[in-house]
This record gives sequence, C-alpha cells and structure tokens, in this order.
Amino acid sequence: MIIKIKDFNNAEEVISKNFVKEWNELKEVLKSSPLHLKSSEQRGKKGNLVFDPVGSNMFIKEELIKKNWISPIPIPSEYSCLGIDIDFGKVGILIEVQYSHYAFLLNNTLRSELFYKIKFEIDNKPLKLAVIITKSNMFPSANSSLYYEQAVEQLSAVANHSIFNIPIRLIGLFENNGNNIPALWTKYLSNTSRKIKEQKEISVNIFNNKIQKSI
Amino acid sequence: MIIKIKDFNNAEEVISKNFVKEWNELKEVLKSSPLHLKSSEQRGKKGNLVFDPVGSNMFIKEELIKKNWISPIPIPSEYSCLGIDIDFGKVGILIEVQYSHYAFLLNNTLRSELFYKIKFEIDNKPLKLAVIITKSNMFPSANSSLYYEQAVEQLSAVANHSIFNIPIRLIGLFENNGNNIPALWTKYLSNTSRKIKEQKEISVNIFNNKIQKSI
Repeated sequence: MIIKIKDFNNAEEVISKNFVKEWNELKEVLKSSPLHLKSSEQRGKKGNLVFDPVGSNMFIKEELIKKNWISPIPIPSEYSCLGIDIDFGKVGILIEVQYSHYAFLLNNTLRSELFYKIKFEIDNKPLKLAVIITKSNMFPSANSSLYYEQAVEQLSAVANHSIFNIPIRLIGLFENNGNNIPALWTKYLSNTSRKIKEQKEISVNIFNNKIQKSI
Repeated sequence: MIIKIKDFNNAEEVISKNFVKEWNELKEVLKSSPLHLKSSEQRGKKGNLVFDPVGSNMFIKEELIKKNWISPIPIPSEYSCLGIDIDFGKVGILIEVQYSHYAFLLNNTLRSELFYKIKFEIDNKPLKLAVIITKSNMFPSANSSLYYEQAVEQLSAVANHSIFNIPIRLIGLFENNGNNIPALWTKYLSNTSRKIKEQKEISVNIFNNKIQKSI
C-alpha cells in the first residue's frame, strides 16, 4: 500500500537518531501489503467493498514477526485496567494498529503517554516512540471506525497544546487512484471470525479517492 | 440513586472553594433520579433488565436545565474534530455523562485536559473542573460500555503519574441491595429511538450488588 505519515513531538528526529533500521522494516512491510478488502455485512452497505481490518492486521503481524518484532506485548498487571496488550514492539518502539472505534485514538495516546512517562520497557529498552497505524477514509469502513485524516486532526489539536510528550508517528494506509488496482478480497467463516472461508485476488477502480462500491 | 465519588487533581478542594452551590445542585439531581431500566435487545441477554442510558440521560438533562445548567455546549469549530458538544456546563464546570464505550473515558479526559489548558470558557468562566458521570457495574449494560469501577481504575492509573492536570470528579451511580427497589422501566419505539412507547414503575430485587435478571 501507499503510506502517509504525520509526526508529533519530534518523532522524525527520534527515528532518524535511533530507529532507522526498525522504521525501514515497518515501511517495507506496509508497502508490501496488498489492499485488504471484504464485503460489508452492515445494514445499508451489504455487499459493498469495505476495508478488511482482520486481513490487514494478520498480514502486518505475520510480516513483522518474521522481522523479529514482538507481538503481542503484555501490559503489566498493575495497568491491566488499560488493556491486555500492545500490538507490536521492538527496542523501545511500540506499534498500535488502530482500525476500530475512533475513541481508541486518544485512549491509545493517553495510555502510551503513561508508558512513556514510567519508562515502560519494550524489548528491554525504555519506550521512546509510539507508532499508530490507521487506514485512509478513501476506504469505506465499519461505522465509527478511526481513519487517518481524522486521527491527524485529533492528534494535531491536542499536540499543539503539549497535552502529551511521547513522540508519535501516525501512519495512514492509502492506495492510488486508477483502474484495476489489485486487492485481496476475503470472506471469513463468520462476522467475528478470523478463519478464512474464501479468498481471491481482485482488482478495483478508485476515483477521486473513493473505491468503487462492489465487485 | 446513590452516588459514589472519586476525585483527581484536587477536585475536592476546587469544589469546596468555588463550586459548593453547583455541586449541591448536581448531587440533588442525581440523588432524586430513579433507577432507569429497560429490557435488553442484545443477543444472549434479550429481555433481561439492563441500565437505560437514554432514560437516565434525559432525566439528568431535564433536571439540570431547570437549574440553569447549559446543555449542550458547542465545541468551537477549530476543535470540531474532537466532537460536536459537551453535555453540560455552568460557571467553569463541564459535565460529561459517559454511559457509552469505555474508550470514551480517556478520550473525554484528554479532550477536557485540552479545554483546561486553553482556558476554554464554559458559561463565561474558564474551565476549572470536569465532572464525569458513570453507572456502576451492578447494573448489566450494553457490551463494552463504561462502568464506574473501571473508570476509577483507569483514571487512577494515569493520574498517579500526572498525565493530566485538570481536576476531575468522577461520579458513580449505584442502588442499595434489597428487595423491592423502585425503578422506572421504559420501552422505546426502536432500539435507537428516544421516543417512549411504554413506561412503568416497577420494583426489582438486588442481591450482592447484582440486579435480578428480568421483571
């Protein structure tokens, strides 16, 4: 896929000084990712092509683990009220893939800020950088799910007033406009299942940053 | 209802110095509120008595407006990415009633912290205090909805490390254990409607902080 980035609290400097190798690994994984799509089951959208968070998550996980990223990273029991685990980590970097409810963005931000402040160790190094992966609003998605453009606005609003200090690199996943953009379409055993029932390579047309509605 | 409170960042002092009258107004409204219940429509819980967020919200709104609280308070357009409005406000206090997804707690906290930092004016006074109203986990509720006990844990975890500075009073709504606790049961025109189809006074039995499952 195509990626866009937005940095907060000098994330760019932190990366260029400490994490060039790790950033290249992550970039390579995301750029090699196919566009994951599925057919919506939501009322009013049924059958329309929408972003497939499960497929995208599984791809990223499989590829990052090959590059020795740790996943998941358990949250210590004294902070269990804040969640069970962090998606990925390596040498002081945490990654959250955030395709679900938009309220999780500031939730993840505040939680990451806490881990930054207590120097929580990720892969034996104190946390120095959070990376949040989101998808663009060019892909129709489940209602209320977070998209990159909204995340840029929200984090910018709070970052402008130094509400948090942790360096954050926000990533958006995009595709080009055009005809016959390749994508991977998946049907799962059920709405909540991660088990694949059917999967095929398809191609879609994207105009004005909007994907065509059905295959 | 019965209320419990947990204060963060010296909210108690801020209230006793500035907001005794307003706190008494709010306390009076919440204590005079009936327990609002409805029958669940969720799969696996269908027909069970659950907390009725719509009814509780409407009651609180009606009563606070009688006491000249402002509702809703529009969020300025430059922060529209953070939401449309704040639930209630008066002379530098904001109130959020938070019965929905638990991720909104830290989301509301971070947003309120921003408004505190920019000295956002509520009723012509700079914001000095946020009040967050939640319901206890003694009342079965929609999946993933926030409850007081969880909110205490989450805010305590982040407050212990000075992640935010705004004084916050967190309120939990409870009922006594016992037989024949009065409640107001409401049926709405549809799942997402606020229009009442049927409403009646009922009584419920509560044991070990758990409400009996059906009427």
